[in-house]
Amino acid sequence: MERAGRSSTLGSTDEVELEPSGTSATIHLDMTTGGGSSSSDFNPFGAIDDVRFKTDEDLPDALAPPFFSKYGDFHTIDWQRDLARDRLRHKMISKKKVDFPLGLLQSGWDAGAGWICVLFVGLAAGATAGIIDIGARWMSDLKTGVCADRFWLDREHCCWSSNDTFYKDDECKAWTKWPWMLNYYNSSSFLFLFLEWIFYIGWAVAMSTLAVLFVKIFAPYACGSGIPEIKCILSGFVIRGYLGKWTFIIKSVGLILSSASGLSLGKEGPMVHLACCIGNIFSYLFPKYGLNEAKKREILSASAAAGVSVAFGAPIGGVLFSLEEASYYFPLKTMWRSFFCALVAGIILRFVNPFGSNQVSSLSAKTLIFICFQTSLFHVDYMMKWTFIELVPFALLGLFGGIIGSLFIFANIRWSRFRKNSKTLGGNPIYEVMIITLITAAISYFNPFTRKSALSMIQQLFDRCEDQTDEDSLCDQNKALSIAFGQLLWALIFKFIITIFTFGIKVPCGLFVPSIGMGAIAGRILGITVDQIFRSVQATPGHSEYFTCQIGKDCVMPGLYAMVGAAAVLGGVTRMTVSLVVIMFELTGSLEFIVPTMVATMFSKWIGDGISKMGIYEAHIELNGYPFLDSKGEYPYSTVASQVMRPSIHRQVADELSMSDLRELKNELSVITESGMTLGDLEGLLRQTDFNGFPVVVSHNSMHLVGFITRRDILLALHTARKTQPYVVTNSIAYFSDAVPDSVPGAPAPLRLRKILDMAPMTVTDQTPMETVIDMFRKLGLRHVLVTKNGKVLGIITKKDILQFMRNKNSQ
Amino acid sequence: MERAGRSSTLGSTDEVELEPSGTSATIHLDMTTGGGSSSSDFNPFGAIDDVRFKTDEDLPDALAPPFFSKYGDFHTIDWQRDLARDRLRHKMISKKKVDFPLGLLQSGWDAGAGWICVLFVGLAAGATAGIIDIGARWMSDLKTGVCADRFWLDREHCCWSSNDTFYKDDECKAWTKWPWMLNYYNSSSFLFLFLEWIFYIGWAVAMSTLAVLFVKIFAPYACGSGIPEIKCILSGFVIRGYLGKWTFIIKSVGLILSSASGLSLGKEGPMVHLACCIGNIFSYLFPKYGLNEAKKREILSASAAAGVSVAFGAPIGGVLFSLEEASYYFPLKTMWRSFFCALVAGIILRFVNPFGSNQVSSLSAKTLIFICFQTSLFHVDYMMKWTFIELVPFALLGLFGGIIGSLFIFANIRWSRFRKNSKTLGGNPIYEVMIITLITAAISYFNPFTRKSALSMIQQLFDRCEDQTDEDSLCDQNKALSIAFGQLLWALIFKFIITIFTFGIKVPCGLFVPSIGMGAIAGRILGITVDQIFRSVQATPGHSEYFTCQIGKDCVMPGLYAMVGAAAVLGGVTRMTVSLVVIMFELTGSLEFIVPTMVATMFSKWIGDGISKMGIYEAHIELNGYPFLDSKGEYPYSTVASQVMRPSIHRQVADELSMSDLRELKNELSVITESGMTLGDLEGLLRQTDFNGFPVVVSHNSMHLVGFITRRDILLALHTARKTQPYVVTNSIAYFSDAVPDSVPGAPAPLRLRKILDMAPMTVTDQTPMETVIDMFRKLGLRHVLVTKNGKVLGIITKKDILQFMRNKNSQ
Repeated sequence: MERAGRSSTLGSTDEVELEPSGTSATIHLDMTTGGGSSSSDFNPFGAIDDVRFKTDEDLPDALAPPFFSKYGDFHTIDWQRDLARDRLRHKMISKKKVDFPLGLLQSGWDAGAGWICVLFVGLAAGATAGIIDIGARWMSDLKTGVCADRFWLDREHCCWSSNDTFYKDDECKAWTKWPWMLNYYNSSSFLFLFLEWIFYIGWAVAMSTLAVLFVKIFAPYACGSGIPEIKCILSGFVIRGYLGKWTFIIKSVGLILSSASGLSLGKEGPMVHLACCIGNIFSYLFPKYGLNEAKKREILSASAAAGVSVAFGAPIGGVLFSLEEASYYFPLKTMWRSFFCALVAGIILRFVNPFGSNQVSSLSAKTLIFICFQTSLFHVDYMMKWTFIELVPFALLGLFGGIIGSLFIFANIRWSRFRKNSKTLGGNPIYEVMIITLITAAISYFNPFTRKSALSMIQQLFDRCEDQTDEDSLCDQNKALSIAFGQLLWALIFKFIITIFTFGIKVPCGLFVPSIGMGAIAGRILGITVDQIFRSVQATPGHSEYFTCQIGKDCVMPGLYAMVGAAAVLGGVTRMTVSLVVIMFELTGSLEFIVPTMVATMFSKWIGDGISKMGIYEAHIELNGYPFLDSKGEYPYSTVASQVMRPSIHRQVADELSMSDLRELKNELSVITESGMTLGDLEGLLRQTDFNGFPVVVSHNSMHLVGFITRRDILLALHTARKTQPYVVTNSIAYFSDAVPDSVPGAPAPLRLRKILDMAPMTVTDQTPMETVIDMFRKLGLRHVLVTKNGKVLGIITKKDILQFMRNKNSQ
Repeated sequence: MERAGRSSTLGSTDEVELEPSGTSATIHLDMTTGGGSSSSDFNPFGAIDDVRFKTDEDLPDALAPPFFSKYGDFHTIDWQRDLARDRLRHKMISKKKVDFPLGLLQSGWDAGAGWICVLFVGLAAGATAGIIDIGARWMSDLKTGVCADRFWLDREHCCWSSNDTFYKDDECKAWTKWPWMLNYYNSSSFLFLFLEWIFYIGWAVAMSTLAVLFVKIFAPYACGSGIPEIKCILSGFVIRGYLGKWTFIIKSVGLILSSASGLSLGKEGPMVHLACCIGNIFSYLFPKYGLNEAKKREILSASAAAGVSVAFGAPIGGVLFSLEEASYYFPLKTMWRSFFCALVAGIILRFVNPFGSNQVSSLSAKTLIFICFQTSLFHVDYMMKWTFIELVPFALLGLFGGIIGSLFIFANIRWSRFRKNSKTLGGNPIYEVMIITLITAAISYFNPFTRKSALSMIQQLFDRCEDQTDEDSLCDQNKALSIAFGQLLWALIFKFIITIFTFGIKVPCGLFVPSIGMGAIAGRILGITVDQIFRSVQATPGHSEYFTCQIGKDCVMPGLYAMVGAAAVLGGVTRMTVSLVVIMFELTGSLEFIVPTMVATMFSKWIGDGISKMGIYEAHIELNGYPFLDSKGEYPYSTVASQVMRPSIHRQVADELSMSDLRELKNELSVITESGMTLGDLEGLLRQTDFNGFPVVVSHNSMHLVGFITRRDILLALHTARKTQPYVVTNSIAYFSDAVPDSVPGAPAPLRLRKILDMAPMTVTDQTPMETVIDMFRKLGLRHVLVTKNGKVLGIITKKDILQFMRNKNSQ
């Protein structure tokens, strides 16, 4: 067996090659063992640029090692150890509780810290979302003109505050269109329209270019939706700086710019990312969370819920999203806090941005306090009016959603892979963004549905037709409707194609709103069709009573179809289920639509999963090679631990392990013996291998497992010993056992290393089915597990081995 | 170390002494290992009265052992094994998929089985709930009179259908009061009232006596709320017959009777139990679920959600209840199905019982199709009108809820324990029920709030006061209000005391409605008080604008206070959080009340948990000694596996294990060696010990672990060998290893037992912290784990040991 071919072998537990910062520093796996690594600021790995890294001197000596965790970039955290560390911390504080008043105060602060932290997160997330909403609306309107008197107002507020009688169709005198600035006033002339078009395109390109420049220069992590990465981070992956303050600032600004530029993208995914940044930043105010990666994820889960809450005004949906889609470790305590956080964020958003999306109301700010939760994002005020026969078109919409969602995922992943591999494209993100924006703006200008902001379009599609006098072209029963029908069809095709190329460009961009938009268009198209069918059936004599329409009103409700279509496509793209239905319910504020939405989501999920198991986020996780252990894979029943472990066994049935195999294995496996190895031996072993950890065994002959030790701990210990204990020399024998012989005068002093040994490594037998092993990794948050047979160590399985195994099995 | 004192030692993994069927048959632990226990209907344990027990001949030979699970009564299931069995089954079906059309059909049926099953469960649960609602309302009205023309109508429908002009205050001529039957018509005379009182008491006692008789004679498991037991069952405990058809029938009938009798109990908990019965019964239609206890729990989780959905008309709340309170193993797939099930059940309930709780509407059945989800149980139609200053009284309500909830739990548990230990009380459940009913009926008759059904009372308390002309005494600003105030106070005290004695009597009884009732009364009392304070402040000159009331209307909304109080007390009793807020939201149908409800629930939870960690359900679980592994306990950090395992080590620090200790342990531990034991040795070991399983080791000297074997498997194997292999005699050597020497002519034939050995037992090292061990038990659903040191077996930890350990630690 050759060694060179395996870049990562036994012990190099989980570093991963990650695209954005290609260097990937394959350095170290910092696992602070229970007792050891005594206080020292020695750092054998060069500069560690982690803000969390502090020398142990800052902390009380006895508590130092377990109190803070440091993990390398792109490493996976050790849940069990971090949680154990937190329990220890908690017990120490509980003990001090009796010391009145300081201990009691500290204990109280500790108990309330989580709540205070999520309160802050909620407040900040709500405020951020509000500011972004207002900013994006203002900048979006900038593409058509500017408010003459008060430039800081958007079009709606400008017209509204000018008390202009000439206020129709979102136009008024106070709102100065760009051609007016150049003294072209004849709004029907070709030149006027051309100028308007040019300005529209120019502003759009300028905004998106600014966004991509910000991202490229200041914070490369600020691009994209962020949800795949958030999923990985919540599952225990560490990406330094992904949730940092620079990412937060640049993503906020970039989000305003990119969503204002009219690109086919949404604010929702990035909002979740921003909320998690806020959670991460605030967690450093509370050492309980800031210094413990596992505990920090509780705050991040709550933040994700707050992000969805502000994105959609859906606090319950946010919690369910965090539970269903984002989180990995989600104890009930976290759920309750997430709900609180989501609620606070939602309320604050209403304070900051009371008019919500495109809804101007004449309420004074004072009365607004009372309506915090009255208005949903897309408030729909009509009563349920669907018949059971309509469940057929709803199911059809679900079918459509599943197919189009899968198609979208396939195409987007193909394009993303091409972008990744192509030098021209991957190396020039700025040009890419400019070209996409140019195309988007140039084309969407000519279609009234794509020209306006996606949120207004969705609102219009969700709306009912009040009566015949409605000026909405969608409600006209005559010629206007057929024109609108064509425009919708065109908008759908355009949106689908452009979104494939848009999702993944290097600006902050989410996928929720484009998906909802596509779905709403498709739903409305179907709704109009069904409406026309009902009408034509009604026109024939002897029709069934099912097909009775009121004169001058919709027969069916095309708005409801738009809603159902939105849920279907969003379900097809993201494969969300319960949270999607709840979000749609909270979005529209009416329980009656649960049944249609649910039918569509169900069909969409079934069809989608039938085509491909992965949602867009999982697909992007796989594309980027993140170490995310999903629960969806299936594996042949016959695979057992010994077939996956390293060193690998070149036999199909590990059951037939002969003694010669075992001997071969023994040569492959770098182990440390409990006693008998000298300091020099250990240093040699560390030099010769690059494993991040070593099993400690009784003897090379027996290979019976005693414990596990990490490279980092042993390096630290040896270095400290060399420095501080003059009698320890190269020939000193290192003892990992208790039984250290009395030092003989003249002989080198023994080195006691028992304390840095992890005495409780997780083990499985070689015959354990891989399903069980994977279950253990997932549920216990392991990083590695040792494989034994009759008490002898055979090998190790790391999280990376499992991911590799799953990928191989799935690609077969 | 003496042996006699330990009724359950090594290997007797998890049988528990349970009250209702005291015999508790400490027999067997049926763990079907992966490959073994070849087809045979031999049953060494006497009659197994399990409907699920089938002889293997019914099944294809190759598939037989893994395809069905049989567990003893009061045993815990093995999740890992059951799920592995299901995966195997699934893979076999996937393989057959290519066989067109039968294989494809089977595969499709298998994929859809879960959905079809929960659809049926939802339909049945909705229908059952509807019938129970209608039946209980009719019987409840029977206490005051009967419909003269059509006896099958309840009072409301009787009066409504009689087109009586004299219809006021729920009285009409068509409704014949009992004294009228005896020709007493003067409704103000003392005799009339006395007769009415007597009839009221008589009917109540008759109904509850009938209920307790049914329960006692036909289905002892039908009593109580059932939620503690459901929690245990969902966590993997097997209670035969608890979810059977007899329990279902008797609990349905008993529930109608007991809730009609006017006792202080609710239908909600029993409804969850009934839904789970339905789930259990239907799961037998689908072998995938019926024959696999772990998979069956997926259906039961969905059923629990449906139960809450029909109890409160809250499908989302039901799913969250199932997730937060009831379920143990809740994959996302289950969540989605639960939602579907809850929704179906809710819709069906509306069909069967369209008028909901006490709401008469003039809608025809046809239009009802359209309003499935329009009406909430307690529909509240007013706009949010609370100011931030009112959050103080809301928090106070939370405080009150937490205190009264804890007090209730404490008193109820004390009384339940007394009932359990007292022969007079425990032996005479019928008299107990009669006495409680007598007292309840006799006293509650004189208070208008307690006299009417709990649901109507809650509806009245939740209602707003429309204007001064409102006839509700609660809305009168004059004398009537102060009388009502006194009545409310009296009702609160009475309800609190009587509910302590009621919850636990041997009729079907839930706790949700009494809790909500108490909370609503307390809230309304506070609401009236705050209202009066506001009014008096307003009457003084120079008052703040906060205290401005509209003339002739409420200043504050006492109805809102009632709602918040209801949430607070329910939270204090059950310690639910998110699901409670969502249920209250769906119950009242208005998102605006989330904030007040949440504040109250939060305070209630904090105060309650400060007083005692356990909710009423956990307290009852502990009282009954069910093996439920909760996540709330805390344990000293220093405890490690070797201190908990059996055989136990009589040393504080297991680290200091000497060789003599190990030798002592070895004598305690009954192990089987891999090779070298004869058939006779094995039979002797089985005779001498009563352990349910044995570790298999390499040799007595080394004690290195090879695998684990259950008593049942080895018994089966030996019996079969004796029967079918004539050359196997007492002196035959049993080999658990692969290396079986060639049989020497003349010597006894060797017995190969490798295949029945579980080669993948879960192990931990002796130094593993107990938190980690408990985590493994909880998350992986283990029944036992082997403790090793340097690859040698030291002992075993069973689920029972862990529960014992947690109880000891908590009681210290």
